[in-house]
Amino acid sequence: MANPSTCWRKFPANNTSPVVAQKPNPATFHLNTLITKPRAYSCKAYSATAAKSPLAATTIPRREPGPSDVQIDIQYCGVCHSDLHFARNEWNFTQYPAVPGHEIIGRVTAIGGAVKKFKVGDTVGVGCLVDSCRTCPDCRAGLEQFCPDMTMTYGSADKHLGGGTLGGYAQGIVVAEEFVLRIPANLNPAATAPLLCAGITTYSPLRHWKVGPGQKVGIVGLGGLGHMGVKFARAFGAQVVLFTTSPGKVADGRRLGAHEVVISTDEAQMTAHAGSLDFILDAVSATHDLNAYLNLLKRDGNLVLVGAPEKPLPVSAFPLIMRRRSFSGSLIGGLPETQEMLDFCGQHNITSDIEMIRMDQINEAYERMLKSDVKYRFVIDMASLK
Amino acid sequence: MANPSTCWRKFPANNTSPVVAQKPNPATFHLNTLITKPRAYSCKAYSATAAKSPLAATTIPRREPGPSDVQIDIQYCGVCHSDLHFARNEWNFTQYPAVPGHEIIGRVTAIGGAVKKFKVGDTVGVGCLVDSCRTCPDCRAGLEQFCPDMTMTYGSADKHLGGGTLGGYAQGIVVAEEFVLRIPANLNPAATAPLLCAGITTYSPLRHWKVGPGQKVGIVGLGGLGHMGVKFARAFGAQVVLFTTSPGKVADGRRLGAHEVVISTDEAQMTAHAGSLDFILDAVSATHDLNAYLNLLKRDGNLVLVGAPEKPLPVSAFPLIMRRRSFSGSLIGGLPETQEMLDFCGQHNITSDIEMIRMDQINEAYERMLKSDVKYRFVIDMASLK
Repeated sequence: MANPSTCWRKFPANNTSPVVAQKPNPATFHLNTLITKPRAYSCKAYSATAAKSPLAATTIPRREPGPSDVQIDIQYCGVCHSDLHFARNEWNFTQYPAVPGHEIIGRVTAIGGAVKKFKVGDTVGVGCLVDSCRTCPDCRAGLEQFCPDMTMTYGSADKHLGGGTLGGYAQGIVVAEEFVLRIPANLNPAATAPLLCAGITTYSPLRHWKVGPGQKVGIVGLGGLGHMGVKFARAFGAQVVLFTTSPGKVADGRRLGAHEVVISTDEAQMTAHAGSLDFILDAVSATHDLNAYLNLLKRDGNLVLVGAPEKPLPVSAFPLIMRRRSFSGSLIGGLPETQEMLDFCGQHNITSDIEMIRMDQINEAYERMLKSDVKYRFVIDMASLK
Repeated sequence: MANPSTCWRKFPANNTSPVVAQKPNPATFHLNTLITKPRAYSCKAYSATAAKSPLAATTIPRREPGPSDVQIDIQYCGVCHSDLHFARNEWNFTQYPAVPGHEIIGRVTAIGGAVKKFKVGDTVGVGCLVDSCRTCPDCRAGLEQFCPDMTMTYGSADKHLGGGTLGGYAQGIVVAEEFVLRIPANLNPAATAPLLCAGITTYSPLRHWKVGPGQKVGIVGLGGLGHMGVKFARAFGAQVVLFTTSPGKVADGRRLGAHEVVISTDEAQMTAHAGSLDFILDAVSATHDLNAYLNLLKRDGNLVLVGAPEKPLPVSAFPLIMRRRSFSGSLIGGLPETQEMLDFCGQHNITSDIEMIRMDQINEAYERMLKSDVKYRFVIDMASLK
């Protein structure tokens, strides 16, 4: 086992240990999976050890890269609301220790012998997924996020090392080439990190439901997701109406691209938009009144939820039935669409509005995030961990 | 004023009184509407006079037919769950006296001079709508059911006579030609009545969301709507799975066209269909657990509600988000699609399974309907009122 703090960063590009041995090594053979554990090295990370414990420095194993793997020195990692849900076991599937982080930007430090798309030194990204079955209908459709056997960047079973996958609050990560993304050279790398989750999560539904010129589109909530939704909807040519509970965000909403900002607690302002919106992207994770928004849609309009409130939301049948409206969900995006989104951002110079923090500020950042006190995404400068 | 009980049925086909006079008659001029009241005649009907009163015999006015009107001698009227909601003011907009009924089959007894599609003696139908603005985008799209100014067969403002529109629990009705439907000659008229609401309400979403061969489609609830959903989904070539809480309905479900019948209270039976359905038509008006059904849909699957539960339904974000599923509503259907549905039924010999009642059995029928004790639609033999 290598020295945890430094060795992995010096890992030579051509030293690609075999991931799957031809003959099982009795010491590491797993009957359940019929694979052998690859060799692992250690690197620094930040983890939660229990639902109510703050995150703290730790050391985690990473597999040595196999032939198709890309080894990445993480430079920046965005802080997503999902990170907090996961660290605090609010979705009831967290295994500890838990290392969140799935908005990863870094530099390639090593590649396996079969890797073709990347070379050492490239700036790359890793989002919410690090693997999938690659053969199911979802994978074949480029919608790996729906693959029943997909591996999330954190919180899934780690097929290589056992235990749970560990995310981007770490010095480095090793990821299969197919799940690594090219980052346009003209974009600020730190401000690009949140595109890997907040970006694709808002880009994908706007594309899937064909938002574009001639449409009036609502974005609900001006946070990490919502502010990207405003930017994309505007870039796609729609008339953009931002809905926020915060009068203090009106000016920012306009600066980010909204043609109009509605204070959603003001009934008169809401009523003025009744039945007028083609599409609503709802990026609010807290419990909120969906019916008020459903009533703003035109006939055949669609409200798509990308936040994930913990409790079921009461949905009245009438707003749906009376105008044939739909209420849908959307989950991040597949790998091809994530690359398309990054390329679009490169062409249109779109990045996230971020606030940089040190790794040791993460617990404070979580508390501020809970109060929506961030404009509009925290990004960890991972140099602070090294 | 004509004799209420008989005169209107003898109304000659060519006696078409003007509906809108060129010069207002001071005696009937309405400042609010700038129209004059047409002459009216009376006919027998059944009405509720308060939310808790049983329906009872009464006399109601009908306008004398104008140039574009069709006068209909009602032969059969289906009994829809909406009739009960309306009679008992469960939607909080009922004005009394209330005459329900919007599944109307009858014979033309008179036509206005401008009427082209119908002649005296034709068997015709009237569904949930008797008028709309005819100029809005919804009307121009043939989706009159969404017209903001549409006139429901009962419970809307009556533009001609004032007060509320009065439905089909009556001897006769006068309806604008454009809202009268041709009935295929090969269909049993009584069993055709429920097509005007239960039929189009299930046909329309199955068509709109393109249900067809190669798809697995769920129908939830085997009642007036559900049994039509089963028939249509089968006729459209889909693999049909019926979901019911009643083990006693399994054999009937198969007889009506379901390939499989699932007892929805049996968790194992439900789980066996997880993630496998392309589309679900949910025809249950009572409060029920939508999330259990959302989990049965494939990626991009859609659950469409056509029942109208009084209270909001708790919808969990996860089933929607994790497979990009949608939850939608659908409302009856427009006039062109209703005619298409009736023609389709004529070609495929599809009608409703009905239980005929006399008009004076309506209150008992409501009580039985509340217990789902009907296979599968009550139809009133309107000769019993005469």
